[in-house]
Amino acid sequence: MTSEILEDLALANHILVNEGVLDGFGHISVRHPTHPERFFIARSMAPALVTPEDIVEVDLNGEVHDAQGRRTYVERFIHSAIYKARPDVMSVIHSHSPAVIPFGVTGARLRPICHMSGFLGATTPVFDIRHSAGESTDLLVSSQALGEALAKVLGPSNVALMRGHGSVTVGNSIKQAVFRGVYTESNARLQAEASRLGEITFLTEAEAKATSDMNDKHLDRPWEMWKRNAQNLSR
Amino acid sequence: MTSEILEDLALANHILVNEGVLDGFGHISVRHPTHPERFFIARSMAPALVTPEDIVEVDLNGEVHDAQGRRTYVERFIHSAIYKARPDVMSVIHSHSPAVIPFGVTGARLRPICHMSGFLGATTPVFDIRHSAGESTDLLVSSQALGEALAKVLGPSNVALMRGHGSVTVGNSIKQAVFRGVYTESNARLQAEASRLGEITFLTEAEAKATSDMNDKHLDRPWEMWKRNAQNLSR
Amino acid sequence: MTSEILEDLALANHILVNEGVLDGFGHISVRHPTHPERFFIARSMAPALVTPEDIVEVDLNGEVHDAQGRRTYVERFIHSAIYKARPDVMSVIHSHSPAVIPFGVTGARLRPICHMSGFLGATTPVFDIRHSAGESTDLLVSSQALGEALAKVLGPSNVALMRGHGSVTVGNSIKQAVFRGVYTESNARLQAEASRLGEITFLTEAEAKATSDMNDKHLDRPWEMWKRNAQNLSR
Amino acid sequence: MTSEILEDLALANHILVNEGVLDGFGHISVRHPTHPERFFIARSMAPALVTPEDIVEVDLNGEVHDAQGRRTYVERFIHSAIYKARPDVMSVIHSHSPAVIPFGVTGARLRPICHMSGFLGATTPVFDIRHSAGESTDLLVSSQALGEALAKVLGPSNVALMRGHGSVTVGNSIKQAVFRGVYTESNARLQAEASRLGEITFLTEAEAKATSDMNDKHLDRPWEMWKRNAQNLSR
Repeated sequence: MTSEILEDLALANHILVNEGVLDGFGHISVRHPTHPERFFIARSMAPALVTPEDIVEVDLNGEVHDAQGRRTYVERFIHSAIYKARPDVMSVIHSHSPAVIPFGVTGARLRPICHMSGFLGATTPVFDIRHSAGESTDLLVSSQALGEALAKVLGPSNVALMRGHGSVTVGNSIKQAVFRGVYTESNARLQAEASRLGEITFLTEAEAKATSDMNDKHLDRPWEMWKRNAQNLSR
Repeated sequence: MTSEILEDLALANHILVNEGVLDGFGHISVRHPTHPERFFIARSMAPALVTPEDIVEVDLNGEVHDAQGRRTYVERFIHSAIYKARPDVMSVIHSHSPAVIPFGVTGARLRPICHMSGFLGATTPVFDIRHSAGESTDLLVSSQALGEALAKVLGPSNVALMRGHGSVTVGNSIKQAVFRGVYTESNARLQAEASRLGEITFLTEAEAKATSDMNDKHLDRPWEMWKRNAQNLSR
Repeated sequence: MTSEILEDLALANHILVNEGVLDGFGHISVRHPTHPERFFIARSMAPALVTPEDIVEVDLNGEVHDAQGRRTYVERFIHSAIYKARPDVMSVIHSHSPAVIPFGVTGARLRPICHMSGFLGATTPVFDIRHSAGESTDLLVSSQALGEALAKVLGPSNVALMRGHGSVTVGNSIKQAVFRGVYTESNARLQAEASRLGEITFLTEAEAKATSDMNDKHLDRPWEMWKRNAQNLSR
Repeated sequence: MTSEILEDLALANHILVNEGVLDGFGHISVRHPTHPERFFIARSMAPALVTPEDIVEVDLNGEVHDAQGRRTYVERFIHSAIYKARPDVMSVIHSHSPAVIPFGVTGARLRPICHMSGFLGATTPVFDIRHSAGESTDLLVSSQALGEALAKVLGPSNVALMRGHGSVTVGNSIKQAVFRGVYTESNARLQAEASRLGEITFLTEAEAKATSDMNDKHLDRPWEMWKRNAQNLSR
């Protein structure tokens, strides 16, 4: 079972690169299926190149437990703190996906513009590291304390933006997190475009909830396509 | 004859993915050539992966008739209701093509900006499911009654937008529907871009009619190119 | 010599598709090297699929002279009329390249924003078929008379826009015409983008002239790259 | 050691094309590792096609020293003058990357919008050749004197825009220069997009410095991915 999860996690890395959510940076993790106080994440490397053999195990304080002594991303604390704060979360993505960044540095709020992104719900909070660590940081969530500050801003939401940096997306499975990562970026593109045409009718809260529940039943459909696309790419 | 139509329908799925009209979701159908009270559509799956063997038969109330008992898309009622209301329609596309969505959620109206999209005609109606089913739906056209409400908004037009969801495009053949699907998306991109440069001179109604008639004579030309592109992609 | 020109013309078709200037429609022609009252153009087909064997010969009134009796594009008169009016022109492109269309339907004028597009010169005229043929045409330049009206608007310029339709670009060789086709589209993209940031400092007329002369010395450099890209694509 | 540098330089050409920084024009150079008064740059050709065998040696006055008598780019003086003025600089890129050009022709200033582009620092100067050579040039930096004028405007910055032309980016290694070239273009895209959503919170100067230092520790990560992508492309 674990080996299947590691393969899905490697594949999810490739899908997220292929769909424009990750580039040379960013990461996705998955909680350990039987030891919920641990999660899996690739060692420090470009997501496009991750294989199951590159994945290490980390605990909820961000401590790496790896027999080979390998290191992982400086920002593993994004993951450890969110898994600690949110027992419902089984997978976490941190990305710099490009359409989302403008919403993190302006007053504009990311909201669900269509039925594919109902999971954005009523609010998409913005984490500004300046409020936790001042105005001269390197913007990285490089400690458990900063991870906890981010997790607090995230609260019960599925997505939080990070000012001048990117965003974090969570799900109850790898497939749900990947779906949300792809459609968070898509919603940002559509919302930016629509905002230039006129005032936008967003989903109501009830529509957001209903569409999110509905999409959860169809996660396999895009996954199969993204999987094929990612596999074609790496041939 | 039927087997050729099923091959064309599978190919149309691939073309629409390749040209950016469909992604992991959306569907295209074609009316049965000799039993006009039936239509063909793929079973519930990502359009990029559809083969002729994946296609099922549905009646104009949205009932699936399949010897293997396979299911198709929840939103098959978009197709069944339109075929019922519009005897002239032989093919229907439902998509979430990205440039069109902003026009469905703002006051901006999609209108023909150049000779390739004269089929948009004078008006492109917008269907808002809230008017039929209230403010807390999952936005899916998941019953014959909702399909009929959509078909009523579509009226005699070739394209109708769906608020917060996507659009529907119809044609008197697979090739015409695919042409319209591709150029509806293209028109939306061009119109959004032009609207930022200044006031737009749209086609007159007479120009829209004349260009639409003219393009109907040249449907094979882009089809051959799109076919080659789609086949290259899936090699 | 003629066979080399036919190969270059077929290649130019593929390059222009590959670089986003042509899609399933549009065409490029070249004047006959030894019979200046004739030009070569593909038969009526998608540019991506053109081979040297698909090219026919046309005279300056738009009459096709083909032993096999093949037909070419309805809009061959764009080419015939321009070759007739402009003895300096050796190659003509008609395209619907997408970034240019918005400039043809708004008051915004296309002007050279950087040194690659100095050939645009001081003015880029706009041809509106309504002034020649009224408000209910199919927008096609489908007669020698309409071609002459277009050629008159083009005058001594290198590029003319066509309202609600596309544009025409001319050069003293296939390579120069292709260069200009690619960079007309590029300039339109850059100008649209820059116009949202603030008032634009365009090239002066003297800069436009000097940069255009300078680029004419380097036409082989991008051609070699575009050639390789187009050949990779069609493998 | 030199042969490794030539291979990296050829690869850097391909990476920059593949990532959209260079097209048929533009160039990257590297200072000679043991003779700091010389640098390496490709002969005059499209960057996508450069191999280690195409690289020539140039001195800091822009004089080519090549046993085979090959010539290089007219604009080699961009490189020679910057290496002369900036002993810290080991690699120089000159590009026409598209998102940057609008910032060079409007009053909008390019500033770091996220942690990947802290190297832009507090100011991104704009070089206008009109101030050095008047209003009728071909905009090329085609002499050592013009190169020195550009180097003076660049000053201690990492990036300078060139009005109506492009930009120059410098680094203390090929990898750093390539990283900066890619993320200068990325920052321009993000900043243009964000400027339409509202007022932008840019990085503080201290954040710009800290993020730039931090990214310098991770230059290998995207390089490995860009390398693989470039190699896949040229297969």
